[in-house]
Amino acid sequence: MKHLVGIVGFRGYSGMELHRILERHPHIDPVLLEHRADVGEQSNLRRKAGPLRLPCTAEAAKEHGLAAVLLATPADVSIGLARAFLDVGVKVVDLSGAFRLQSPENYHRWYREEHMEPALLAEAAYGLPEFCRSRIPGARLVANPGCYPTAANLALKPLVAAGVIDRPAGIVCDAKSGVSGAGRKPSLKTSFCEVTENFSAYSILEHRHVPEVLMYSGIEEAEFSFTAQLLPLDRGILETIYFRSAKLESAAQLIDIYEAQYGEEPFVRLYEGGRVPDLRSVQHTNYCDIGVKFDGTTGRAVVVAAIDNLVKGAAGQAIQNLNLILKRPETEGLL
Amino acid sequence: MKHLVGIVGFRGYSGMELHRILERHPHIDPVLLEHRADVGEQSNLRRKAGPLRLPCTAEAAKEHGLAAVLLATPADVSIGLARAFLDVGVKVVDLSGAFRLQSPENYHRWYREEHMEPALLAEAAYGLPEFCRSRIPGARLVANPGCYPTAANLALKPLVAAGVIDRPAGIVCDAKSGVSGAGRKPSLKTSFCEVTENFSAYSILEHRHVPEVLMYSGIEEAEFSFTAQLLPLDRGILETIYFRSAKLESAAQLIDIYEAQYGEEPFVRLYEGGRVPDLRSVQHTNYCDIGVKFDGTTGRAVVVAAIDNLVKGAAGQAIQNLNLILKRPETEGLL
Amino acid sequence: MKHLVGIVGFRGYSGMELHRILERHPHIDPVLLEHRADVGEQSNLRRKAGPLRLPCTAEAAKEHGLAAVLLATPADVSIGLARAFLDVGVKVVDLSGAFRLQSPENYHRWYREEHMEPALLAEAAYGLPEFCRSRIPGARLVANPGCYPTAANLALKPLVAAGVIDRPAGIVCDAKSGVSGAGRKPSLKTSFCEVTENFSAYSILEHRHVPEVLMYSGIEEAEFSFTAQLLPLDRGILETIYFRSAKLESAAQLIDIYEAQYGEEPFVRLYEGGRVPDLRSVQHTNYCDIGVKFDGTTGRAVVVAAIDNLVKGAAGQAIQNLNLILKRPETEGLL
Amino acid sequence: MKHLVGIVGFRGYSGMELHRILERHPHIDPVLLEHRADVGEQSNLRRKAGPLRLPCTAEAAKEHGLAAVLLATPADVSIGLARAFLDVGVKVVDLSGAFRLQSPENYHRWYREEHMEPALLAEAAYGLPEFCRSRIPGARLVANPGCYPTAANLALKPLVAAGVIDRPAGIVCDAKSGVSGAGRKPSLKTSFCEVTENFSAYSILEHRHVPEVLMYSGIEEAEFSFTAQLLPLDRGILETIYFRSAKLESAAQLIDIYEAQYGEEPFVRLYEGGRVPDLRSVQHTNYCDIGVKFDGTTGRAVVVAAIDNLVKGAAGQAIQNLNLILKRPETEGLL
Repeated sequence: MKHLVGIVGFRGYSGMELHRILERHPHIDPVLLEHRADVGEQSNLRRKAGPLRLPCTAEAAKEHGLAAVLLATPADVSIGLARAFLDVGVKVVDLSGAFRLQSPENYHRWYREEHMEPALLAEAAYGLPEFCRSRIPGARLVANPGCYPTAANLALKPLVAAGVIDRPAGIVCDAKSGVSGAGRKPSLKTSFCEVTENFSAYSILEHRHVPEVLMYSGIEEAEFSFTAQLLPLDRGILETIYFRSAKLESAAQLIDIYEAQYGEEPFVRLYEGGRVPDLRSVQHTNYCDIGVKFDGTTGRAVVVAAIDNLVKGAAGQAIQNLNLILKRPETEGLL
Repeated sequence: MKHLVGIVGFRGYSGMELHRILERHPHIDPVLLEHRADVGEQSNLRRKAGPLRLPCTAEAAKEHGLAAVLLATPADVSIGLARAFLDVGVKVVDLSGAFRLQSPENYHRWYREEHMEPALLAEAAYGLPEFCRSRIPGARLVANPGCYPTAANLALKPLVAAGVIDRPAGIVCDAKSGVSGAGRKPSLKTSFCEVTENFSAYSILEHRHVPEVLMYSGIEEAEFSFTAQLLPLDRGILETIYFRSAKLESAAQLIDIYEAQYGEEPFVRLYEGGRVPDLRSVQHTNYCDIGVKFDGTTGRAVVVAAIDNLVKGAAGQAIQNLNLILKRPETEGLL
Repeated sequence: MKHLVGIVGFRGYSGMELHRILERHPHIDPVLLEHRADVGEQSNLRRKAGPLRLPCTAEAAKEHGLAAVLLATPADVSIGLARAFLDVGVKVVDLSGAFRLQSPENYHRWYREEHMEPALLAEAAYGLPEFCRSRIPGARLVANPGCYPTAANLALKPLVAAGVIDRPAGIVCDAKSGVSGAGRKPSLKTSFCEVTENFSAYSILEHRHVPEVLMYSGIEEAEFSFTAQLLPLDRGILETIYFRSAKLESAAQLIDIYEAQYGEEPFVRLYEGGRVPDLRSVQHTNYCDIGVKFDGTTGRAVVVAAIDNLVKGAAGQAIQNLNLILKRPETEGLL
Repeated sequence: MKHLVGIVGFRGYSGMELHRILERHPHIDPVLLEHRADVGEQSNLRRKAGPLRLPCTAEAAKEHGLAAVLLATPADVSIGLARAFLDVGVKVVDLSGAFRLQSPENYHRWYREEHMEPALLAEAAYGLPEFCRSRIPGARLVANPGCYPTAANLALKPLVAAGVIDRPAGIVCDAKSGVSGAGRKPSLKTSFCEVTENFSAYSILEHRHVPEVLMYSGIEEAEFSFTAQLLPLDRGILETIYFRSAKLESAAQLIDIYEAQYGEEPFVRLYEGGRVPDLRSVQHTNYCDIGVKFDGTTGRAVVVAAIDNLVKGAAGQAIQNLNLILKRPETEGLL
């Protein structure tokens, strides 16, 4: 028998992607939870049997025996919804930033609001399976990582742990994202004519995703320079990461460190020979691809990490976490 | 009376841009110099009076009294052509990398070929008017800067000179360019289906433009990490430059350094208040726009510089140099 | 001395284009008329001397001696503004559909509203200079044509007049437009992620621009099939027009008809030899380019007409009309 | 046990799509047949187990027991390869135009070459399963339809058969395709900078795909006007089809005709209520989506049909045919 799993925010890009993935999942059926009183969008197709739709309430979720709900909603909405679903015993994977930062102080600094559920914030498991796999299956509430931090942490954490980065010289993460990362709500900044043939930087040194990188990679804020930039394309994140290393002699040593960490990981792929991924390599997949370039003479290192912001950076990773919670194979529905 | 100025390589993107700018220039008329035995492309328009066309020979250039020629040709082609035109007394502005690197050793290292005209290489004036203005009017041969180095040097040189960069910590230049920078010759890498919705890095730490930045900004190679990246758009370069500074306290101090350098420059524009340019701001103009973000607490600095790779990064700057050579006002035809 | 001309709606794409063109106009200075109580957008640039700004009132227009105002506003806004400016003796060129359809009945059918100023509607001169040039200089109020009708009427009117189209077989106009034609107001339909890599048809057989084609070309509604379609690009309209002709024998005869009509026109260009324009040929210009393909054996004809929707389809043509009203050379500022 | 099926031309866009689909096919394993002596492209990924590779010879195909080969090669290459594979008893699905036109005269007129294997041309089954399903399972050689004719025939054939089109008034098919339809070989016409922000018509009234529409829909050439146009996007074909009908009264009647034809078809979807598909609806699927708009007063009809040119227009339909040949369920691997 299949699990029923609710999706809130199914009209946004992450929610649509959750729906798409779960439609092909062999052991989970999606249920669309109507949060806003939308005028029901009409289907263009003659006959279309859609998934079950329910009102977005804890009662409905309980009554229909939902195994979990996925929240693809803004942080302030997620906070309230998570409380309501957890209170009736329905597990939650939240795709917003609501539960990622562990402490109310941290949340307040970066999201400029008081956190209304500090106990849940403390309780939430961070859903980066490659590093937090053991805690997730037992969690009631999983905070799905941000898109930028997913790539940055997968690229940086093994190197920080191995102690090969000259941290006082600093680490630069120059990040570029497709427009779907900004969500589906219309705005001038994501209008076609403003984005096409354009490229722009935003939130330089101040992006909300910075603390997630710091907390989970162990880097200090003073060591880390992060810029987010908007690519004129739909989906994909590519991060070009720069640091120095006096300890390394070759790119192969860097790949070896990654290999030791990720050799058995189903969703991390490594590139050899100085080659690096482009966005095409990862679009519409749950992979994080990593390649490196290193100059042994001068110690300059460049790591390129790429993900699809809507898959490994959002919905795909959420399903990975969902599989863990529901004791399904972690890759189910994702390969 | 108008000057006649020849364009070689007028079918490439830089050559087309040279043609376009000179058509509107009040004191210069373009002459198209047929280098290859092309089957003459037919005009689609019923009646079109085009510019004068001549064979690409020194004799024709001399006979028709060309005041100068602009070479929008590959480096190896430019080397021979420059010699031929100079020998009959016609001045040359070369848009390739043939004459930028001063020494044959440098050229050989980065272009993997012997330089056939080392005397011309030594003689050539580097055509970055903002810093080399005094030498250009008297030069017979001007090496027009590369697109990436134009933005990088305009962004970095004043800061290096002011001594505000912590150079041992390194400088990162993460550069992104539109596809026209790769030239007009068809290749798989610049095919529409390979580029659209994609983003990729290339020549990491090894780009040919790196030595131009080092030579003219005074930075050491070991201090400088440079990555070139291909944006899915036609034109524009944006460089995100990272460094650290223990000497600075605010972004305003950085802007003041730039203002002191560029206050009177017609083609450098500065942004205030932590704002930075996007590509839209500079496309189809000869401007280099610069903005900065600085965190005084930690000394992290980010400079964003943007140009149009075909204008300030190629044809526009070449016309700027041409104006200087022909003793015309530097901005003529460019505003 | 320069004329002062006001622009209302200068933050929209047509208004921005009006501003851009007038900045380079040798005898007109733009004045920005603040219609909405916008929070003044900050300039990113350090020093920027902008044009004069005034409140959007008839009093201010009169007091500052504006020679005319250009309305780049929605139809319902234009109707009231036109009345106000005309009442104080300031001439008006309106870029909306408010005054194009001559009768209140026509307006009501296509715009689904009562027209509040039927007398002005009757009075307005239609601003397609190639056919209505004589009436425009004496007009107080010019209705600038719609983008689609500009290309369609320039392509069809000479052929209808020449009687070479088999009208009972029908005329098809398959029109494609860049996204800027939909205006700058954010909406899901013009969001980047919805448009990129997509193509869609809308308002099939029911587009508001249809009556303009019918009225000014002399075609009957039953004879004319029109589809508007959204291209994933910023600017440009290309219309592929199909009809049959038993009277013609060659494409050259079609071009001859156009040549007889447009031989002296500065903004219509004709293509020979079965060649047709693409969008690149007309972007950022005030030209309408026309080419034809004809099969003499079967009488099948295809005409391709292209314009830039923001220039000949909006702001450029409005300046053409403005020049006529102000007794300036019609091409001033537009070549 | 799985069937082995060879792919020739696996580096082109159609060949890559064949590979991608067969990798997920539950009962077929792809084999890459090396036709050109390519320098083997290196994989970027560390460990990648690829499919079996063989030289592209009849001997190898026979020896390894290939159940069939798919030819994603140019027409002139396909003709020779088809002969060679068929002679050793290996069935062939050819994606080129080599075997679609039934007679050597037809082939010569549209492809400007003598057909070297007229007997195979006469023998080939046309692979549009929705209309030719009965002949395909028994065929040795299937001519996979062209991309444009697939959409045009699915849209037109039921209406021609129903006799509802006023054929003397003519049928217009205004077709738009993504760039992948032009193949992967680099050319100026498909270079990024030439295509982005551009739109252009080509082969007006003379496209090679026209005879396929005429032959299989039953329309006369004099009745059919076809224009192909290049969209600035990767994949998808949308055709806007215009005709007149004195016999119809409503759009619903048109949909009923389609429903009667396609009610049980797995890969044709119909739209109701005057709605029409966009490209997004069909990209990366094997569906052909059809919607209609009809004006009962004047008899004007517009049909919009959309497919993915690489799936239903090439590789997907080829797998559909392959399934039929191999007696597999027609939809296997395609949903």
